[in-house]
Amino acid sequence: MTILENVLKDNKEFVENFEGEEMSHHAAKKLAILTCMDCRLIDFFEPALGLKRGDAKIVRNAGNSIVGEDAIRSIGAALYNLGAEEVMVVGHTECGMAGADAEALKEKMLARGIKEEDIAKYDLAEWIGGFESEEENVKNVVEKIKNHPLIPDVPVHGLIIDIVTGELKVLVDGY
Amino acid sequence: MTILENVLKDNKEFVENFEGEEMSHHAAKKLAILTCMDCRLIDFFEPALGLKRGDAKIVRNAGNSIVGEDAIRSIGAALYNLGAEEVMVVGHTECGMAGADAEALKEKMLARGIKEEDIAKYDLAEWIGGFESEEENVKNVVEKIKNHPLIPDVPVHGLIIDIVTGELKVLVDGY
Repeated sequence: MTILENVLKDNKEFVENFEGEEMSHHAAKKLAILTCMDCRLIDFFEPALGLKRGDAKIVRNAGNSIVGEDAIRSIGAALYNLGAEEVMVVGHTECGMAGADAEALKEKMLARGIKEEDIAKYDLAEWIGGFESEEENVKNVVEKIKNHPLIPDVPVHGLIIDIVTGELKVLVDGY
Repeated sequence: MTILENVLKDNKEFVENFEGEEMSHHAAKKLAILTCMDCRLIDFFEPALGLKRGDAKIVRNAGNSIVGEDAIRSIGAALYNLGAEEVMVVGHTECGMAGADAEALKEKMLARGIKEEDIAKYDLAEWIGGFESEEENVKNVVEKIKNHPLIPDVPVHGLIIDIVTGELKVLVDGY
């Protein structure tokens, strides 16, 4: 069975047992969250923050970083149009983006058939968006959000979650 | 109680009852997924796709769109470094980014104290990244991922999930 077939099989089972309902697309807990795409956050992140269906807009990317405007415009959409009134940046311990190595990435790209001339068009270290420390990254990202000219004056909190225990630590209290 | 205090209270309760374990940060189901930040996907999206803790890297932004390099570099990190071998773009029905209105957004920004001169530096319609049709958007995003010069040759699937029933529909079979 392919990966896609496997997902569709599980989906069929879900739909048969799920009682659907119409819900508001406004964030019930008035939160916009930026966190990581890490696979260990599934079935972990939302319960660890007490979030249920409908509670928060959750933006996720590699390393809960600000690379270009994508995460910022998503947070903006949440604040202006979708009921969010506060922002939370939540990093996690043991993040795969800490110490990301651009030279090793280039080797992997070449091995997969990516053309050297295409790689040369990018600053790979900047493109992949790694960082040294998860905690410093959260603090930097909070500052980038607060200082963006199109983001209104709202509390922006910075936290880190322990990927093993689920415990949150506040790095920046945005109030 | 503030929003932050409320989250920390729920977190304390979670940690007391959670049995933590060390896990791999490689995606067990070999999947990188791009979906929306919508609050209705919490406690809905992952079970609807049969995803458990550790299974997939999940990138989320407003409208599961490609705006700049952020989602692309995150998918790249998943494919090169974190065990993903296929990509799935999953839009949803009733998306708030369908028909996003740049003029209305500008009015909201001005009402929140954003300076007109700062707004003028951006093409707001492009910045917010809206679209007309959720299904067309998914197909366009699949093409953008497949055609990006730094993304290797892997299956890229496009699907849409019914936000009420949870049913998936395949728009692009990437095999």
